[in-house]
Amino acid sequence: MSLLICIPDTMKPESLRFALVSLDSELQIEIGPENVQIPSAVEFAVVWNHPEGILLNYPNLKAISSYGHGADGLLSDKKLPESVPLVRLADETMAEWMSEYLLAVVLLERRQLLAYAKNPGFSEWGTTARHPGNNISILGLGFLGRAAAKVFLQLSFKVAGWSRTLKQVDGVSCFSGKDGLTDMLKETDYLINLLPHTSETHNLLNTDTLKELKRGAYLINAGRGQTLVDEDLIPLLDDGQLSGACLDVFRTEPLPSKHPFRKHNKILITPHNSSATPADSVAPQILENYRRATSGCQLLNLVDLEHGY
Amino acid sequence: MSLLICIPDTMKPESLRFALVSLDSELQIEIGPENVQIPSAVEFAVVWNHPEGILLNYPNLKAISSYGHGADGLLSDKKLPESVPLVRLADETMAEWMSEYLLAVVLLERRQLLAYAKNPGFSEWGTTARHPGNNISILGLGFLGRAAAKVFLQLSFKVAGWSRTLKQVDGVSCFSGKDGLTDMLKETDYLINLLPHTSETHNLLNTDTLKELKRGAYLINAGRGQTLVDEDLIPLLDDGQLSGACLDVFRTEPLPSKHPFRKHNKILITPHNSSATPADSVAPQILENYRRATSGCQLLNLVDLEHGY
Repeated sequence: MSLLICIPDTMKPESLRFALVSLDSELQIEIGPENVQIPSAVEFAVVWNHPEGILLNYPNLKAISSYGHGADGLLSDKKLPESVPLVRLADETMAEWMSEYLLAVVLLERRQLLAYAKNPGFSEWGTTARHPGNNISILGLGFLGRAAAKVFLQLSFKVAGWSRTLKQVDGVSCFSGKDGLTDMLKETDYLINLLPHTSETHNLLNTDTLKELKRGAYLINAGRGQTLVDEDLIPLLDDGQLSGACLDVFRTEPLPSKHPFRKHNKILITPHNSSATPADSVAPQILENYRRATSGCQLLNLVDLEHGY
Repeated sequence: MSLLICIPDTMKPESLRFALVSLDSELQIEIGPENVQIPSAVEFAVVWNHPEGILLNYPNLKAISSYGHGADGLLSDKKLPESVPLVRLADETMAEWMSEYLLAVVLLERRQLLAYAKNPGFSEWGTTARHPGNNISILGLGFLGRAAAKVFLQLSFKVAGWSRTLKQVDGVSCFSGKDGLTDMLKETDYLINLLPHTSETHNLLNTDTLKELKRGAYLINAGRGQTLVDEDLIPLLDDGQLSGACLDVFRTEPLPSKHPFRKHNKILITPHNSSATPADSVAPQILENYRRATSGCQLLNLVDLEHGY
């Protein structure tokens, strides 16, 4: 039996192979989808942006793991083998990197460091342009959202969070539902989207919802591009309803070179790297799920097919 | 008796007057140095960048307070009234703002957000350019340095500190002396200067000391400009010994418009606003020292004249 790794070269499949073999030298690992020696031996697949339909080539697959926190790339494959369970990752290091990115962006905005980088005369000598707004709202209170909330709370921000089902998180004002969203947005200085892309989150951030934010709020999208309506964002930035936006995810990735976001002076773009999947850190949970799958045990971090994440 | 406020308009003397009067409506406050009604009534002065010699005009001064953490501006006045004690501020909010600035700059550098702001194609799509270096070293373990250390420790950085006399700070590797400086610098990824300007710290950051840093270290100067030898910094940035520098303080302030720092693409300049003096927050300690001075009690936060801070 073998474990198939089918992830882009930029995610370093060889590093994952090395990390897995370091934990269990007897593991049979294939890096695919090309040149898989014995397709019928593949019992577990780790994938990210895999070609549609290729998972049908392995008749003895027992489980498929996304190589990230998101399952949308996996679920967008309309030719998945039926009744093979899907799992995703939930990793402390990935959460730490995401929290660090979000904190970096919030502090960058609060202290106006991009403005000073462009023009040190942006404010008079000796005067501060520190934004007093202290209210962070996080859309999505899963593994990543809760970790980010903890970091912001440590630094004395006021933190709110919104999720599909109402959660309880220490120190966080929790909201859910449409009215809950309105209630949260109207108190928000920094809105952070970490929601998965599902039919419910599609286009959630649009003119109507973003107008409910406090005037001059700042938007960070590190969830999925499909949650934000691109054409709604620019007028909101131009008229000052939003003071700026930092976008790490987009409807089309890489972001097309002529996309209007690229030229907007209130938009900071990062290339979907708010977090990353560190092979060393995630290898143990991948191995654990491989062992559980091949021995018929309950899997960790199962994808909820009904809700799509 | 009265309290004289003699600070630049950019520091808002009227806000300080308002904050003090809010605490004690019977306080007599003069905003000077012009138009002081009864110079002989002035018993306490709060100053920042005051004109040399003016404090000799008040024969009944009992104490002089700097309107900031630094006492160098006060001490640079060679015509101070003899035997009038000097005090400075030590304020939690100022420390919080300073820590926030330092954290913002460290995370900005770690996550390369300025590079992405200039060019989102700075790294390949989906790959991170996160700097793994985790060692923060703080020069100066006074009120501000200890507060910053605490924030970096909360975020899992390794923190070292260097001070004139060896200190003990929870979780911080403490150093002092010339050999201690070398030992600390060689393990440093981010060097933060918060030292006061004294004869001992003058020109401390020069080619010799900065070459002791780990190659590619990042420098933040939020202490005093006189600690850094300007002409030594640029070659160290150009040859890669330093990956960059963020400078908030300078030998001449405002930084002259033709200073070579202004054009260097590895230098981020902020206009001496890493922290600021919030009137509301510091008014109680100013009032406390005013009361102590006028009733002959021991003052808080006395300036150490022997060591110059």
